[in-house]
Amino acid sequence: MEGDPTLQLRVFDLNCWAIRYLSKRRQERVRLIGDMLRQEGFDLVLLQEVWSERDYSDLKAKLGGCYPFSHYFRSGVIGSGLCVFSRFPILDTLLYQYSLNGYPYMLQHGDWFCGKSVGLVVIKISGIVFNVYVTHLHAEYCREKDAYLPHRLVQAWELAQFIRHTSKAADVVLLGGDLNMHPEDVGIRLLRGWTGLRDAFAEATRFEGCEDGCTLIPNNCFTVKTELLPFPLGIRIDYILYKAVSSFTVKCKELKTTTGTAPGMDIPFSDHEAVMATLHIQRQGQAADSNLGTAEPMLADVVTEARTEVGVGLRAAQRQRYSTGRMAVLALLLLLLQAAAALGTLAGLAAGQPFPKLSFSLLAFFAIGILLLATGLHLFHTIEVKMLQGTEEQLRMALRALQEHP
Amino acid sequence: MEGDPTLQLRVFDLNCWAIRYLSKRRQERVRLIGDMLRQEGFDLVLLQEVWSERDYSDLKAKLGGCYPFSHYFRSGVIGSGLCVFSRFPILDTLLYQYSLNGYPYMLQHGDWFCGKSVGLVVIKISGIVFNVYVTHLHAEYCREKDAYLPHRLVQAWELAQFIRHTSKAADVVLLGGDLNMHPEDVGIRLLRGWTGLRDAFAEATRFEGCEDGCTLIPNNCFTVKTELLPFPLGIRIDYILYKAVSSFTVKCKELKTTTGTAPGMDIPFSDHEAVMATLHIQRQGQAADSNLGTAEPMLADVVTEARTEVGVGLRAAQRQRYSTGRMAVLALLLLLLQAAAALGTLAGLAAGQPFPKLSFSLLAFFAIGILLLATGLHLFHTIEVKMLQGTEEQLRMALRALQEHP
Repeated sequence: MEGDPTLQLRVFDLNCWAIRYLSKRRQERVRLIGDMLRQEGFDLVLLQEVWSERDYSDLKAKLGGCYPFSHYFRSGVIGSGLCVFSRFPILDTLLYQYSLNGYPYMLQHGDWFCGKSVGLVVIKISGIVFNVYVTHLHAEYCREKDAYLPHRLVQAWELAQFIRHTSKAADVVLLGGDLNMHPEDVGIRLLRGWTGLRDAFAEATRFEGCEDGCTLIPNNCFTVKTELLPFPLGIRIDYILYKAVSSFTVKCKELKTTTGTAPGMDIPFSDHEAVMATLHIQRQGQAADSNLGTAEPMLADVVTEARTEVGVGLRAAQRQRYSTGRMAVLALLLLLLQAAAALGTLAGLAAGQPFPKLSFSLLAFFAIGILLLATGLHLFHTIEVKMLQGTEEQLRMALRALQEHP
Repeated sequence: MEGDPTLQLRVFDLNCWAIRYLSKRRQERVRLIGDMLRQEGFDLVLLQEVWSERDYSDLKAKLGGCYPFSHYFRSGVIGSGLCVFSRFPILDTLLYQYSLNGYPYMLQHGDWFCGKSVGLVVIKISGIVFNVYVTHLHAEYCREKDAYLPHRLVQAWELAQFIRHTSKAADVVLLGGDLNMHPEDVGIRLLRGWTGLRDAFAEATRFEGCEDGCTLIPNNCFTVKTELLPFPLGIRIDYILYKAVSSFTVKCKELKTTTGTAPGMDIPFSDHEAVMATLHIQRQGQAADSNLGTAEPMLADVVTEARTEVGVGLRAAQRQRYSTGRMAVLALLLLLLQAAAALGTLAGLAAGQPFPKLSFSLLAFFAIGILLLATGLHLFHTIEVKMLQGTEEQLRMALRALQEHP
């Protein structure tokens, strides 16, 4: 089979920052993105944060000619924001929604409402089966005190497990998305190590774009400059990762990023920079990098580190479960006390009207409100505890497997 | 390879009905189940409705000798209730939580709180890779007017897709569980057709147990007799399904069910009957039944039927989304009206005190309560609509694929 022609695949990935009513100059930018995609003619386009189905439909209508196949992944209240455009037929799709994704009461962070997920589309090009994954993990709002780290780690682990379990018949695996993790973060090391995926930026023969491949840069007029203060060059959180799982090799010949303002325009496409990879896929005589852990020799250490962080999150969730449970019990006690007092008054035990009616009713309503709220939160944190426990146990199992067969 | 020795695998499946505080004689029954499993020495045990982790730990402690490997799948508020005991090492696990699973406000049905899921464990026996799935789908509370049919269909579809995508490297696929569907229901036809799984009851060379293989029978002292009135023999909703995906064949040599009261005891193990299959697995010269749709020649019709039902559910969800949204808007208007009236009073526009303070406050609290409740429900039904739309689209895609390559 040696000497087979090389298949060239051009992949585009972008977090489009297309939040209705909130993202600046959204419609204009979605139009620009569509124009550029039509002009450039990539083979595969992986988009995140296309929250509005209307935006997706507009893109689909515009791109129908050069990308006849597309899929929008629906999930959560707002949607997953994930979609794929392809020059080649999409044979099958699957969506996996992460079990943890922030907190519904953190309205200002909104991640919970998005139903963050990983979408899979299966594509066959020249007889080669591609499993293409697109995802968007929970945002990092404060790097120093990142309350969402355990949730993002659960997501990274679920993503890795989902890819491993679903890609066994694929020839080539591609993952594109906004992982909200810096290249050296434990989550991405876990993902790379556990799946064997390689980072297109690190592997690229040629690179052109922002220094260090950053995808959130101070030069972009839409980024929040204060958030990037500790990182003068910006940060790299958007990735294209790949591997060959059977007798194929994949090489990244070229990687590019956009660099702020789009050429010939006065605004960038998004607050993120796009990542564009040119991959060369070739049939080989024997299997290449299909072994677990080739990309991460110290995988056991990474799994241990991830497990520790998940453990920290687990203890925090257990504390929150306890305190919300206690609050619900206290509210219930207050209500029972009020009921007893009211019954006492009705039965004529107390002389006259011991409490002003208005304050009494307000207090009762307050107690009912607290009871409902605390019960809801208690249920939510119970789910959180369960999922963190489940992940911790799976990481323990993974560690044991690694230690038994290093 | 012809002439390889046959591998015999004895599989046990039971919905244990082990709901803390609710299920009758739970602890006694869990003990009985443990005793019987230890005595019988199956190869694989797939259990559902083990809601309490304590019950799982007790079983694990008791069964450690004969089933050294086990896994409990955590999910939802209460848990998934799913667990697996195995004589052979469990190499890997994955949990997929169904995107729809009833309604949180249907407290009397409780399914929503269970986080219904499908659990996968990967096992290797004599070099043969087994993907073993255990699941429990949404209950059917009223067959004549089954409000949960669209949700159960979404679950059946997600189950089929999850199995298809994760089992591509498996030699043998096994699925056990309480599917809450009769053998001729559209959901199970879809599941069988789309995955190629075969029904152990239909394929068994020998059968011993309840007539028609029923697993919910009037003879069982824990079943609700009125629910089984239209079915004098009972109903069959618990299954063991299987297929060989590569060059193997699987044959069901024997299928058994329990028949109400356990032998030598005064109570049954559960309100469901257990299903026990003896499977013979043999290596073959060439691949067997790996083609899609071999088990269901009229698959396109089944997909169409499923799509119609999902469409019915979609329209109902859209109506509920609309009416809850309208209720939220009305509550908000009432609140605004009250705020205007209160401001007017404060500004001295109205002479004196136009409303009694107590009724005014109660009305405001009532409006706030309705607003919060209606908003929550609106968000929930928005998710429901999205997931039903997503499934309908996937079914449409599946139908197109079937029509293009029948």
